[in-house]
Amino acid sequence: MAKEKKVAKLIPLGGVGEIGKNSLLLEYGNDLLMIDAGVMFPEEELHGVDLVIPDFSYVVERADRLRAILITHAHEDHVGALPYLLKQLGRKVPIYGLPLTVGLIEPKLHEHHVLRYADLIGVSGPERFSLGPFGIEFVPVSHSVPDSAAIVVRSPVGTMFFTGDFKFDQMPVASTPPDLNRLREIGDEGVKLLCSDCVRIERPGVTPSERVVTEALDGIVHDAKGRVIVTTFASNIIRLRQAIEIAGRYHRRVAVVGRSMEQNIDVAARLGYLDIPENVVVPFEDLKQAPSREVMILTTGSQGEPTSALSRIAMGDHPLVRIIPGDTVVISATPIPGNEETITRTIDNLMRRGASVLYPPVVPNIHVSGHASRDELRALLELLRPAYAMPVHGEYRQMVHYKGLAVETGVPQDRVVFAEVGDVVQVTPEGISHDGKVRAGSVLVDGLTVGGVTQVVLRDRRHLAEDGVVIAAIAVDRETGELLSGPDVTARGFIAAGASSVLEQGAARLKRALERRPVGEVEYGYLNRKIKDILGSLIFSQTRLRPMILPVVTEI
Amino acid sequence: MAKEKKVAKLIPLGGVGEIGKNSLLLEYGNDLLMIDAGVMFPEEELHGVDLVIPDFSYVVERADRLRAILITHAHEDHVGALPYLLKQLGRKVPIYGLPLTVGLIEPKLHEHHVLRYADLIGVSGPERFSLGPFGIEFVPVSHSVPDSAAIVVRSPVGTMFFTGDFKFDQMPVASTPPDLNRLREIGDEGVKLLCSDCVRIERPGVTPSERVVTEALDGIVHDAKGRVIVTTFASNIIRLRQAIEIAGRYHRRVAVVGRSMEQNIDVAARLGYLDIPENVVVPFEDLKQAPSREVMILTTGSQGEPTSALSRIAMGDHPLVRIIPGDTVVISATPIPGNEETITRTIDNLMRRGASVLYPPVVPNIHVSGHASRDELRALLELLRPAYAMPVHGEYRQMVHYKGLAVETGVPQDRVVFAEVGDVVQVTPEGISHDGKVRAGSVLVDGLTVGGVTQVVLRDRRHLAEDGVVIAAIAVDRETGELLSGPDVTARGFIAAGASSVLEQGAARLKRALERRPVGEVEYGYLNRKIKDILGSLIFSQTRLRPMILPVVTEI
Repeated sequence: MAKEKKVAKLIPLGGVGEIGKNSLLLEYGNDLLMIDAGVMFPEEELHGVDLVIPDFSYVVERADRLRAILITHAHEDHVGALPYLLKQLGRKVPIYGLPLTVGLIEPKLHEHHVLRYADLIGVSGPERFSLGPFGIEFVPVSHSVPDSAAIVVRSPVGTMFFTGDFKFDQMPVASTPPDLNRLREIGDEGVKLLCSDCVRIERPGVTPSERVVTEALDGIVHDAKGRVIVTTFASNIIRLRQAIEIAGRYHRRVAVVGRSMEQNIDVAARLGYLDIPENVVVPFEDLKQAPSREVMILTTGSQGEPTSALSRIAMGDHPLVRIIPGDTVVISATPIPGNEETITRTIDNLMRRGASVLYPPVVPNIHVSGHASRDELRALLELLRPAYAMPVHGEYRQMVHYKGLAVETGVPQDRVVFAEVGDVVQVTPEGISHDGKVRAGSVLVDGLTVGGVTQVVLRDRRHLAEDGVVIAAIAVDRETGELLSGPDVTARGFIAAGASSVLEQGAARLKRALERRPVGEVEYGYLNRKIKDILGSLIFSQTRLRPMILPVVTEI
Repeated sequence: MAKEKKVAKLIPLGGVGEIGKNSLLLEYGNDLLMIDAGVMFPEEELHGVDLVIPDFSYVVERADRLRAILITHAHEDHVGALPYLLKQLGRKVPIYGLPLTVGLIEPKLHEHHVLRYADLIGVSGPERFSLGPFGIEFVPVSHSVPDSAAIVVRSPVGTMFFTGDFKFDQMPVASTPPDLNRLREIGDEGVKLLCSDCVRIERPGVTPSERVVTEALDGIVHDAKGRVIVTTFASNIIRLRQAIEIAGRYHRRVAVVGRSMEQNIDVAARLGYLDIPENVVVPFEDLKQAPSREVMILTTGSQGEPTSALSRIAMGDHPLVRIIPGDTVVISATPIPGNEETITRTIDNLMRRGASVLYPPVVPNIHVSGHASRDELRALLELLRPAYAMPVHGEYRQMVHYKGLAVETGVPQDRVVFAEVGDVVQVTPEGISHDGKVRAGSVLVDGLTVGGVTQVVLRDRRHLAEDGVVIAAIAVDRETGELLSGPDVTARGFIAAGASSVLEQGAARLKRALERRPVGEVEYGYLNRKIKDILGSLIFSQTRLRPMILPVVTEI
């Protein structure tokens, strides 16, 4: 019998050359494993789009072969697409993660009515288990949510190490320090491929420990004369834990404002990741009569999201919380690229209402990143000494910088693997090479529709957003083509002042043109084109604008 | 004879509580002076808007009383609104500035066909002159364009000092170092009010000298094996000057790509602000055959603007320039807030084409700001010792930080003046106080229309952008109300997959409802509402989307 060829395929469905929708597929023989299934938040130009998820076609077509989904940690860009994926798979799938990870996933799946498709399995850190040809090990790492893990996959083609999101925090707040010896041991075993987070490689040195935030927050809360309002990511359980501890230290009670944050705190407390003394966290109503010095408010909105609690507080539009002069607001987060304007506007509005607002980098150490900087990424490369390295969780320039770093640590230039979304990376005992592409990409979620927003729809939305729409309605006799009514020319989102004159001129010019037209059976395409040409050129010559022109021809 | 009351009014028309459209009015008796008339670049949510300019109504209504416009420096956020203002004033106005400033303004006014309204007057730095009750002095300062000036206005109510944009560059590249003694002398005279740039107050310390860029650029050009492509703001004459000098030093010839940059270099060279050795700056065509090591390209697009030269080069879409592997691209600029995504996308695309891309802060010192950091702002306060201080050129939080700084240097808390756009700040020999508001705000420019885009238009554009538009056309008999044709329901920018089924169901439901309707004369409002209600609720229940629904009712 000929020896069967050992081949694994690694297929990133997202998260390479982009920030967000992290998801990787691993295929060996008949078995598929998925690592993470995250969402991406849409750029501004994706008008109206709520979320972007990976195109899961490849795995959905092979749904029966999917052994399990392994989750590194419970951030939206790693788990947010699970509900959509499960709905598409339409079958029950084992989902593995450390205990808090599966704990945080559960209510989200419940909300989407897909909990029945999930077999949620909590894994303890050091445990090893097998899934078909794959040997799995979860290695705890530090990040901004507890129970974050790297995942080691041992397979017939070698050992692959997936970092998830990580940093080396030597004094972490909610976990043990990174087990560098364990990492070195795994390196000693021989790592074929390291797939590493690279999003923060542009920063030199190491990311500061979460511990520096403890000190900074402690000082702020100690000094504050009034209420302290702290905002951070709803998922940043570690930061929330620190804030609650410090509040307790200075005899402040804590109200949590913002649904996602309340939910995460509930789950984390229930699973033992947050030790909340009795009567410290209370409903906001209970604090209405409390002296300002005894109040802390934890709230969502650290990115200035327009509908978030903090943004509404800043606008004076929140049903419960109003800013009182003397309030100290701590923005314990940095803007995700693209959110700079919304967050600075929120800061400005909070200040206009009399709050003192502390934000990075003006006030240092009130936020630290959960991601490894360059020297930590280098340390991991040096501990694991992989034969091949592949940057993930980064945009293209970050992947390029990671390549430079990997080469510095001894990985040969041609063994740094660059994969784009959908690329098939073939791993054999002999080496790693590209092997074509599978269908993959972005699927846009808008309201209840998944995939209904296409490039054509987006192009139309962009056009409509730019200069609005002009509607020209006429009624013609079906047989003679005679103009029975109209043209009525109206507009929305075009221009106000001066528009009526342009539109009236357009209607008059159109009417003359249509009346001149030889009478006969209606040619729909001809009429459409005529209306667009006449109105379009008149409007452009007078305004230099190109609204979308929609002819409405009714045949009677 | 009763002593007449001395009152000056200072009215910011823009630039306070916002970045951009810097413009201040100064009024004394019958005389008006304007300092700067800048534009603001629209935020993303101002769909389709090209530019934002100040509402100049107050000065336009008093056009005959406007003595002059004084310009601090030739950046768009200080001069970009001049063409619109001059058109509205409809009369010739003296415009004063240092020589390069008026030199750079001239071609812009010419392009807008308003040069006939401008009496451009170049001022030499130390010169003093009078305009009615105002004594004017231009004080040269360092900034990223040569011939930037602060403006001192002496008036019967005291001396006012307007910084314009400035930093204290002790080793400037294209000007003499700041004359601190002159500033101290002005302080000795007594300054009633300091209106200070505050945009960079969140940065501690001092802004590095432009000189550090010289060294960094020199090293890069020295080491580069291939072509060097440098991008910066088209108006950053100082940076361009350095790049050209360094190119000459290493025997590279320079091609300039990007119309605004070519124009600015022409003006600066003609007026003696750029000393270009013969045959160093040449058309790009002349460099096609040149060895890569002998080529430098200067290009616009440092903000990743989609239609800019660099962005098109990055997309492989530029008519002249294509990236060759081995090219070094230097991004000698930092993103203006809001532009982070476009510039990182440009960097990624340049790297995908094989360029090595150097950008801040990953590569340090290839850009420095033209604005004063906190310690420089403090130094100016200490030199001038103003009785009152008013932060301008900043958002609200920056104004708040400036207030803290002014108080630190000895300005009493209640003498730090906060003005919003349109506020009248009344200055008398006795003191400074608020005195109501005048009509002021933002006017939106879209194509040829100025002010045609209103809040209603923007709201409609936002609505259209979000979920698209659904058009429901029916024809009814004018007298009987009988449905003659339709409903025809079509959509644009809505959703693709699944849309036809929703729209067909909508049409059918609408048809039933309209046919059930008691026959009689057409009630237009009733039909409109009916169509919107029926379609809107069906679409929302099936998709959770709310497209704009436009009924088109034709009466025959």
